[in-house]
Amino acid sequence: MRTHKCGELNKHHSGQAVELFGWVHRRRDHGGVIFIDLRDRTGLVQVVFDPDSPETFAVAESARSEYVLSIKGLIRDRPAGTVNPNMHSGEIEVLAARIEILNESETPPFPVESDIEVNEELRLRYRYIDLRRTAMQEKMKIRRDVTRTLRNFLDDNEFFEIETPYLTKATPEGARDYIVPSRTHENAFFALPQSPQLYKQMLMIAGMDRYYQVVRCFRDEDLRADRQPEFTQLDIETSFMDENEIMTIMEEMIRQLFAKVINVKLDAKFPRLTFQESMSRFGVDRPDLRILLELVDIAEEMKAVDFKVFSGPANDPDGRVVALRLPRGSDLSRKDIDDLTKFVSIYGAKGLAYIKVNDRQAGMDGLQSPILKFAPDAIWMKVLAKTNAQTGDLIFFGADKANVVNEAMGALRVKLGHDFNLLEGEWKPVWVVDFPMFDWDEKSQRYNAIHHPFTAPSCSDEALVANPGAALSRAYDLVLNGTEVGGGSIRINRTAMQQTVFNILGIGEEEAEEKFGFLLEALKYGAPPHGGLAFGLDRLVMLMTGSASIRDVIAFPKTQSAACPLVNAPALVTDEQLRELGIRLIKPAGKEKV
Amino acid sequence: MRTHKCGELNKHHSGQAVELFGWVHRRRDHGGVIFIDLRDRTGLVQVVFDPDSPETFAVAESARSEYVLSIKGLIRDRPAGTVNPNMHSGEIEVLAARIEILNESETPPFPVESDIEVNEELRLRYRYIDLRRTAMQEKMKIRRDVTRTLRNFLDDNEFFEIETPYLTKATPEGARDYIVPSRTHENAFFALPQSPQLYKQMLMIAGMDRYYQVVRCFRDEDLRADRQPEFTQLDIETSFMDENEIMTIMEEMIRQLFAKVINVKLDAKFPRLTFQESMSRFGVDRPDLRILLELVDIAEEMKAVDFKVFSGPANDPDGRVVALRLPRGSDLSRKDIDDLTKFVSIYGAKGLAYIKVNDRQAGMDGLQSPILKFAPDAIWMKVLAKTNAQTGDLIFFGADKANVVNEAMGALRVKLGHDFNLLEGEWKPVWVVDFPMFDWDEKSQRYNAIHHPFTAPSCSDEALVANPGAALSRAYDLVLNGTEVGGGSIRINRTAMQQTVFNILGIGEEEAEEKFGFLLEALKYGAPPHGGLAFGLDRLVMLMTGSASIRDVIAFPKTQSAACPLVNAPALVTDEQLRELGIRLIKPAGKEKV
Repeated sequence: MRTHKCGELNKHHSGQAVELFGWVHRRRDHGGVIFIDLRDRTGLVQVVFDPDSPETFAVAESARSEYVLSIKGLIRDRPAGTVNPNMHSGEIEVLAARIEILNESETPPFPVESDIEVNEELRLRYRYIDLRRTAMQEKMKIRRDVTRTLRNFLDDNEFFEIETPYLTKATPEGARDYIVPSRTHENAFFALPQSPQLYKQMLMIAGMDRYYQVVRCFRDEDLRADRQPEFTQLDIETSFMDENEIMTIMEEMIRQLFAKVINVKLDAKFPRLTFQESMSRFGVDRPDLRILLELVDIAEEMKAVDFKVFSGPANDPDGRVVALRLPRGSDLSRKDIDDLTKFVSIYGAKGLAYIKVNDRQAGMDGLQSPILKFAPDAIWMKVLAKTNAQTGDLIFFGADKANVVNEAMGALRVKLGHDFNLLEGEWKPVWVVDFPMFDWDEKSQRYNAIHHPFTAPSCSDEALVANPGAALSRAYDLVLNGTEVGGGSIRINRTAMQQTVFNILGIGEEEAEEKFGFLLEALKYGAPPHGGLAFGLDRLVMLMTGSASIRDVIAFPKTQSAACPLVNAPALVTDEQLRELGIRLIKPAGKEKV
Repeated sequence: MRTHKCGELNKHHSGQAVELFGWVHRRRDHGGVIFIDLRDRTGLVQVVFDPDSPETFAVAESARSEYVLSIKGLIRDRPAGTVNPNMHSGEIEVLAARIEILNESETPPFPVESDIEVNEELRLRYRYIDLRRTAMQEKMKIRRDVTRTLRNFLDDNEFFEIETPYLTKATPEGARDYIVPSRTHENAFFALPQSPQLYKQMLMIAGMDRYYQVVRCFRDEDLRADRQPEFTQLDIETSFMDENEIMTIMEEMIRQLFAKVINVKLDAKFPRLTFQESMSRFGVDRPDLRILLELVDIAEEMKAVDFKVFSGPANDPDGRVVALRLPRGSDLSRKDIDDLTKFVSIYGAKGLAYIKVNDRQAGMDGLQSPILKFAPDAIWMKVLAKTNAQTGDLIFFGADKANVVNEAMGALRVKLGHDFNLLEGEWKPVWVVDFPMFDWDEKSQRYNAIHHPFTAPSCSDEALVANPGAALSRAYDLVLNGTEVGGGSIRINRTAMQQTVFNILGIGEEEAEEKFGFLLEALKYGAPPHGGLAFGLDRLVMLMTGSASIRDVIAFPKTQSAACPLVNAPALVTDEQLRELGIRLIKPAGKEKV
């Protein structure tokens, strides 16, 4: 058994005999001496092989990159001038007395050094090589620290970790289910859970009081930018707490997490924004508060102007007109503005009007824009005042249906914030609250639940039925630097209210009974007031490690096409397996290997 | 927010104002006063409603069993003579000043009291009621304590918790896979893991050094006595440790677990038994060492006797002849012995010979048995000496093929041990080691792996090839009171050895490449010596809580027919879902609800 790990060694070990295990990170032959940087999970240490011990030297000479070695030797200070300040063990080295090659290695498909860029498909196919890189080891370490810190907090606060089934029944969370054929129940399928939502509600009804689980969730989605078919959630539910109490304890958990794992001090109290204020000021319900720019509503001002592009949306109840001031933006070139116009068009904006404020003191003469003529001077002066425009600024405008303006100008805000470095602070958490219960889907002519159908409204049954579109929910999302890292709500705990919500969502009695009969029944037997939330663990670790993708913080992620190039999954199965399960392929002809 | 939990209150809180939440466990009206036992996760407290506060009294009067209440009141000592010593809070009571009914309850389908027996199907269908029972709450609490204690030990010993995929590829662990159709890869399926075996080996090759995971595993087995389609494993793997080091650290973990969670002191060092010794003395490879009985081999003695029932197996290399002494068993009746004969016949034994030792000093005259005539007196005297028979004992005999004798007499040993209370000690852990690598399957005329194909042999490549049947593995099982609670091995870390084992198992080159190509490849890139094990968490918690079934320590288990009566899973899915997945039912006619 080893006496030490490589990366732990330092000056204090000088003179000690050690036994180490590790990989050949690098081998250099220099001045008749062999140097091997030996690597284990903790880091590197330099091992020196002297030609005076010919047997040891000969073995060292045969060692190649990524060979696995066992080394016995003596720690000594490095000679003056050869200290490596970039290495934790850089003041010492190991003079080898014995070396054993525990296993050999072919030349790896790519170098283990972290700073060499490698194609991601190749990294995933040889994930066991990729994970040897220091950067990946560090991410895995932080992930385990994150999980451990969260668990400890919850354990210490009397949350019970309780496991819920993976072979379960479909519940509608907005995505497709992965389903699992059952051999013992003809034509029946399990579903893999999109979340343990209903089980955790059952646990509250069972009197478990406070529950949590680090749990895998499954969604068979069309894989957008950074989604995974399976992802990990920190799932939490409590009884007898209202939304304020839940948000308070949860933000304390997140504060401790950041302090303990990455030594970051977050706000003593996270700000709370209503959904409406967030949409109004930032165009999104997950605002990045580091960005100093804000949207300013100017519909009031534009209602009467003789410029349909502005007055149309200003007078449309579904429309919106906003200004977005870019400080020191007046020197943007024609091409810069064209590029930004192209950018907002991705989000459906039909153009991007602007005014350059060349001289704020000079009144209209200080302004430069093709749209000045479309409205009276007084209006523009009001807009300048409302946006607090200064000499040298540039003001952009968005006018369209509210959702188009929000998406386009919200995205423009983020882009300008990053491009012009208009950011303040490193970590900006914010709770978004007072979401609407439902949004109206024009196409299907019915309401959708903004969160999920088990979310409690903050109004009475009667008010809910009278005007579902105006009802707010008791939901809350935690947003960090523009990314939603967690979200939850107080749940409905009365059968009648739950049925009312199903009705509004157009879920008929029979469908409700078939899908949620057990919930409606359970609510009859003393369901306590309860609520909770879930954090996206992958996303949280991604942010905390500064990673570009959640794939970088998952040991064995799937590719964007939902496959694993390491084990080569998914794969074909035998006809016999299918027959046992009572299913067959629709197109068995396409039977080539995937 | 509440000030206290119900079960926490005691004499020290006397005089304090409290606010509590909980369920009506029991309501009694006595002498014009209402008493409600209020229940939460921590236990019960008695709340008293005085008719002097008519408003509060009226609400209390309307409260029924399992109503959810909020109570404000004052803690006071119970009047002399009404103290309840069986209740943690039995010295005090709460004089209610305010009561609010947070939710009502219909009469539950069965009482929440723990000591009332309820049909298991009903318990599972209303699991949220069942889990309210004190006994179930206690099991869930111990389960969380077990998991937490194990995690803390492993965290403190530098094991990294790392998650591995659930959507993966089939690996042969001896059971059927659950498979998951893929929508994005035509005709391809994921498999749910039977264990993360190959992923944890990949993590070792990736240099993660020490890994663990509390992980769900899936096996689509014919559900025997106490199996679940999904179960939880504590999965562990380390690099650079041999089997002794692994067993040493793991038994330290189990010792701490028992000490911390159930206050049990296990042996300072767990005994180790070879597979061969275990089979020889106990007939099984998971012996219950609490039982004081042992099998004694008497084949040598019986080789030459003129009694084919004994001499046949004694001269058969696959046969076995044993004696099993039952102390103070000589007064067993004819009927007792007939019943035991029936019992061993379940395991294939064709009879159950016996000798009653009525008087050990009297030589042959002191013995009573129909078989005495079949062998010379000297032989019987040798048998008496070898089994250490005393006056008043009874000796049973088993003679047949070794596997029949082992199963029948091993089971008889356990039965007699329990029936006659011949047990010593409460907890008897034991490591079983030196398993054979393979057993020969007569039917398919090939070798099977006793553990799994990645287990390292303790001999060289050459010895393995020369005589696979004689090779021992570097595997180890942890057995507790006759139940296998964990098992593992040192793994093969060289491509050549892994290929040799595949060859012996009759896995051809093409099949090996298709199923395990990634493993064979990974072993080429510096795979360290590594090994590990897995503990069955459900089984461990079952033993520690004294539960009769693992279903009792799983919050939402499946029934014996692999269904969940709570959510009603598995269930039918729509044709559209199947179409998207490229599959259809073989017998869509059987389309009635399951």
